[in-house]
Amino acid sequence: MNGYFDNASTSFPKPKEVGEWIEKYLASGGTYGRAGHRKSIEVARVVEETRDLLSSLMGIAEPENLVFCSSATEGSNAVLSGFAFKNKRVLVDSMSHNAVTRPLHHLKESIGLECSIVPHFSDGLIDIDQLKSMVDSTVDMVIVNHVSNVNGVIQNIREIKNAIGDIPLLLDASQSAGKVPVKANEWGVDYLFFTAHKGLLGPTGVGAFYANNPSNLPPYKYGGTGSNSESELMPPYNPDKFEAGTPNSLGIFGLYGALTANLKSLHSQEDFYLLLEKIEQLKAYEVYCAQNRENQSELFSLRHRGKSNDELAYVLDRKYDIQVRSGLHCAPFAHKALGTFPNGSVRFSISPFHTTLDFENLYNVLEGIS
Amino acid sequence: MNGYFDNASTSFPKPKEVGEWIEKYLASGGTYGRAGHRKSIEVARVVEETRDLLSSLMGIAEPENLVFCSSATEGSNAVLSGFAFKNKRVLVDSMSHNAVTRPLHHLKESIGLECSIVPHFSDGLIDIDQLKSMVDSTVDMVIVNHVSNVNGVIQNIREIKNAIGDIPLLLDASQSAGKVPVKANEWGVDYLFFTAHKGLLGPTGVGAFYANNPSNLPPYKYGGTGSNSESELMPPYNPDKFEAGTPNSLGIFGLYGALTANLKSLHSQEDFYLLLEKIEQLKAYEVYCAQNRENQSELFSLRHRGKSNDELAYVLDRKYDIQVRSGLHCAPFAHKALGTFPNGSVRFSISPFHTTLDFENLYNVLEGIS
Repeated sequence: MNGYFDNASTSFPKPKEVGEWIEKYLASGGTYGRAGHRKSIEVARVVEETRDLLSSLMGIAEPENLVFCSSATEGSNAVLSGFAFKNKRVLVDSMSHNAVTRPLHHLKESIGLECSIVPHFSDGLIDIDQLKSMVDSTVDMVIVNHVSNVNGVIQNIREIKNAIGDIPLLLDASQSAGKVPVKANEWGVDYLFFTAHKGLLGPTGVGAFYANNPSNLPPYKYGGTGSNSESELMPPYNPDKFEAGTPNSLGIFGLYGALTANLKSLHSQEDFYLLLEKIEQLKAYEVYCAQNRENQSELFSLRHRGKSNDELAYVLDRKYDIQVRSGLHCAPFAHKALGTFPNGSVRFSISPFHTTLDFENLYNVLEGIS
Repeated sequence: MNGYFDNASTSFPKPKEVGEWIEKYLASGGTYGRAGHRKSIEVARVVEETRDLLSSLMGIAEPENLVFCSSATEGSNAVLSGFAFKNKRVLVDSMSHNAVTRPLHHLKESIGLECSIVPHFSDGLIDIDQLKSMVDSTVDMVIVNHVSNVNGVIQNIREIKNAIGDIPLLLDASQSAGKVPVKANEWGVDYLFFTAHKGLLGPTGVGAFYANNPSNLPPYKYGGTGSNSESELMPPYNPDKFEAGTPNSLGIFGLYGALTANLKSLHSQEDFYLLLEKIEQLKAYEVYCAQNRENQSELFSLRHRGKSNDELAYVLDRKYDIQVRSGLHCAPFAHKALGTFPNGSVRFSISPFHTTLDFENLYNVLEGIS
């Protein structure tokens, strides 16, 4: 039985190909782009192929505009610390994670950035009509969390970008990458960031960010690139401009394994909807999810009416070997939007490795806790 | 035969324990500090034990002041971008890497930081008497590369810190960590940074930096920490203050494997000195190394008098299966100091896995190339 329902933190298990490609890396060695010998060239080949695969998955036509970094948080910081906020005014989605709200708070303190919350429905879904009436030429950027890490609500990115027109859109794809379709170019996404270790089923330590027009961003860290080494400046071209320091080749090999694993989910979307529907009918719980199923990703939160979140999570782990996450999930604003602040919720996040049997087991356990 | 002599870029092979601990991570899953379930607690235990081991190895008494990041470059940027340069004046070692000189150049452009090169002997060894006469209360920081990644010269850190007194010392330990003793507290090092994938024989994607008094540095990135999640501010305590985003638990497990492998070098220091001595006697080459053996780490550079660096590196790789690095090694200033700019050199860097037989083979190959 697979009782691990904390995949929105870090997915588990990983496809066996992740370990296999890490083993391949360890067996062959070498450093990406730092030398001309064959070991180094082979590493560079896999890294660049991974960049291509990832770009294609995210609907990005120019892989050189997809930069490898160490985490979604680093990607968010790279964009937010470098972007020129001319009017010092941004709109931010109510479901944002601390990976966005903490950098924004820092900008509020350092440059006086003013952040307004985008109007939304009770499940956090952005009210696009109201958004349309809020945007004008004084808005520097709109920042949206594609999929909430609290209740799994999926935002309608194409419609959002249509509503805001030329205003740059920054998309947090941390919970969507690998879980729901992302069509960056088609939707007109200007910036996005995500990580390998959640829905993409890759290792920790690998993130990426994308800029439609990277010349708008300065480097966010400075150092060796194995290119233009005679210069004190970062190379002016992508992705080198943003990739100072030895990249995490080992992790990228693991991600290559995940992307080429061709994994089929062991449950259907309908199986998940059915699980959610049954849990919603349990009287002991208040469930937090999207109002419409078409906006529902494979994660949701709940609260037990008679037990604290920590107590429920503890019982699930120690008595039933079910791992979940209790608390604020680094997203206090989302809980404010959902009315679950400051105690938060207990979150269940699904993996393609979950079977309908795992769902049944989870349901039976939840039903049995009174 | 082990012909991989590019260990100063990325060490290869790794101790088998690196792969074993990564496998353990992949088999057990979980996220450091992000949930209360047992998988997460076990990951946190290994991460903190690794922090303890690493602190102890680097002579640091307070592990919470050692921050995990993704690379030495990120560590360097974290310190240099956060430090308050009151007089806008630093002294920097001639053997510095682009991981230091490029952030410094950015500070020169952005805040007008003035950087002076520390006086040195012809092998790049710092002239401590001259350094002493250069320092005064207008110097904000002295920045030293512990071991050069070009000729392997080891700086005398204890004496340097004695010479500069209260002026903060930032130590680049990228090439020394795991190769030569580092005694951060005993020597009075104020800041240092290093990476796991070189002399420590760990994976890519894991770096660390240390601050003797971390309250002098602001966070350098902002995001979720799994702690104080209700606040828009980073936690005020270490290491959480600096560790935004999911840490590279998989990589840290691998580093734990490397640190606990208890590896014995397959050659002695004398074996290495002998190799170097013999190569120095070959008339076809000009060798770049420390003038005194006690300041010599296990790496050196050379140039063939009749072949370009790239040509030599190519022949070594394709004809003799010997991997080296040709060029500037991301350290243009070091080559300026050594008189090898702009063509650079061919670098040989040693691993504890090298045997005297590997040394003999290398010597014979070099001798045979006329």
